[in-house]
Amino acid sequence: MAITIGGSPPIAAIPQKKYDSVQWLSKGFSHMKIFSRNPRFKLSSSPLPFHGAGNMPKETDVHVVTPDMSSPRLMPELLDAWNDDYNGVVINPESLPMSANAFASALRASLSHWKLKGKKGVWLKILQEQAELVPIAIQEGFNYHHAESGYVMLTHWLPDDLCMLPGSPSHQIGVGAFVINDKREVLVVKEKCPCSCSGVWKFPTGYINKSEDIFSGAIREVKEETGVDTVFLEIVAFRHAHFMAFENSDLLFVCMLKPMSCDIIVDEKEIQAAKWMPLEEFIGQPFYQDDPMSKKVTDICIAAHEDRYCGYVGQQLASKLDCKLSYLYNAAFWDE
Amino acid sequence: MAITIGGSPPIAAIPQKKYDSVQWLSKGFSHMKIFSRNPRFKLSSSPLPFHGAGNMPKETDVHVVTPDMSSPRLMPELLDAWNDDYNGVVINPESLPMSANAFASALRASLSHWKLKGKKGVWLKILQEQAELVPIAIQEGFNYHHAESGYVMLTHWLPDDLCMLPGSPSHQIGVGAFVINDKREVLVVKEKCPCSCSGVWKFPTGYINKSEDIFSGAIREVKEETGVDTVFLEIVAFRHAHFMAFENSDLLFVCMLKPMSCDIIVDEKEIQAAKWMPLEEFIGQPFYQDDPMSKKVTDICIAAHEDRYCGYVGQQLASKLDCKLSYLYNAAFWDE
Repeated sequence: MAITIGGSPPIAAIPQKKYDSVQWLSKGFSHMKIFSRNPRFKLSSSPLPFHGAGNMPKETDVHVVTPDMSSPRLMPELLDAWNDDYNGVVINPESLPMSANAFASALRASLSHWKLKGKKGVWLKILQEQAELVPIAIQEGFNYHHAESGYVMLTHWLPDDLCMLPGSPSHQIGVGAFVINDKREVLVVKEKCPCSCSGVWKFPTGYINKSEDIFSGAIREVKEETGVDTVFLEIVAFRHAHFMAFENSDLLFVCMLKPMSCDIIVDEKEIQAAKWMPLEEFIGQPFYQDDPMSKKVTDICIAAHEDRYCGYVGQQLASKLDCKLSYLYNAAFWDE
Repeated sequence: MAITIGGSPPIAAIPQKKYDSVQWLSKGFSHMKIFSRNPRFKLSSSPLPFHGAGNMPKETDVHVVTPDMSSPRLMPELLDAWNDDYNGVVINPESLPMSANAFASALRASLSHWKLKGKKGVWLKILQEQAELVPIAIQEGFNYHHAESGYVMLTHWLPDDLCMLPGSPSHQIGVGAFVINDKREVLVVKEKCPCSCSGVWKFPTGYINKSEDIFSGAIREVKEETGVDTVFLEIVAFRHAHFMAFENSDLLFVCMLKPMSCDIIVDEKEIQAAKWMPLEEFIGQPFYQDDPMSKKVTDICIAAHEDRYCGYVGQQLASKLDCKLSYLYNAAFWDE
């Protein structure tokens, strides 16, 4: 399925509003309208100064579906909804009928109405406090799309052809931190975990938080687990693994960090122990020597430490076109 | 929150079973048991030959919670469930009571029972055909965790302290393909979309499919949109953007591909037009020249084409320890 993430180069060639819309190209959905109508999605918390404005919808975005006036008595009230840019419909999650019966009849009538109008994807977000509406929506042909704390999003593809709606997020992003000091000692931890690895000295690792950048996630994890302050140097490699939790995928970014302090304060909730370990002792552990993936990553980290390797650094760049500030990660390159 | 994605280097230092468990360290969940008990999660489709074996659960993983036999009459039947490695409970989605009333009383009794036993995270997967159980679970204190076509996963953190369960997947992975031939012509497309960008010549871009690798996603998107066969050369950069659809984040990987054919067959579902455009004409478009992000990515792609840049190549490596084959992406480096 094609999306357009900006132009060519694909990253940033489209204004925010267009960008948000176009990434759903042929997938029947422009998510901004949900953001704009739903307090949960207020963007005031965005760290991206340009972002809010870019996401402000025009009134013309909003389209309340009204019954066919030629037969007002025969048509029950329809659900409040607006069109998306792809001939789809987004039901207003803030104005769903409170009663299950009223919802069921309005949903049924709305679906027939939208099908007659040739609409394609229908998006229905049900907040946790209205969970009793979920089985009704499923009964009317909706399917789960995604969920997170507080709501579940359901979709219904009205045409008879193949559903072109986008999938839900599929990846967790992990970071691993290689922190080495001037004495060639590596910062290592022993995790508190019920598995055999708990006895092994490893890099600090973790998942990044929602909307957190890779480099700041690595710095935070090291600080949380060991108390050591660091600065980000570069991403030296990343691994793409499939069939992880819930059959989703993981991207794990291996980051080189420079220590700015040496005292260790162990996070006792998660970590058994942490210490500075001489590099030779660290790479001497059979645990790594016997494993092709581990050996390769260790070799890369050492090469990077010895300036025999050029990883990716991050640079925050604005795009006039999508009114967004984002980090681009790339290696250094030589001018012509 | 710490995870351990393998050891240190964090990628691959743990056997598959341990790996799957330990990545949920202190998050109260080991997903393998759900996979193992639920036909939906059969791993036969895995392209990773070592994977299936790694995920086979031992019978000892399964723990059916039974009532306190000292007072059998007072205790209603409890839900079938098993323990995870983090003092949590995974309810068996295959054996939920069919009737809402039976489910409600069994769930209530089970939650009290597990709370008394000091259990932490409770995982409840409800298949689409049992949607009527969702509002009951919400009423009993469950919250949505994630959902996808066919099911919704709910969680309940029993202790009074801060919930330590892991988040749901937060990222969509996009690819952009820079395809340039020996005549310095770039493969560009005009998307069919309702926004202004539809008039602009851009890289082919798209989202990778579930469990698809980055390089193969880029090759597939180019083939789908333009009919051109390519081989993957390297990832030259990636952008990390937040507050995209559903307030999730995107990682977009810019891939250099070498064309192996030249004839263009446009995918008319998604693409207005596609052609080979002289590089100078391509970079001359104001659309890119005016935009810092676009300009930088274009410069990187040209430098890579002119051998003035070293991007990341992928190498499939086995880990003896997690019994997994995964792609590691990194630059070339010099031996000592």
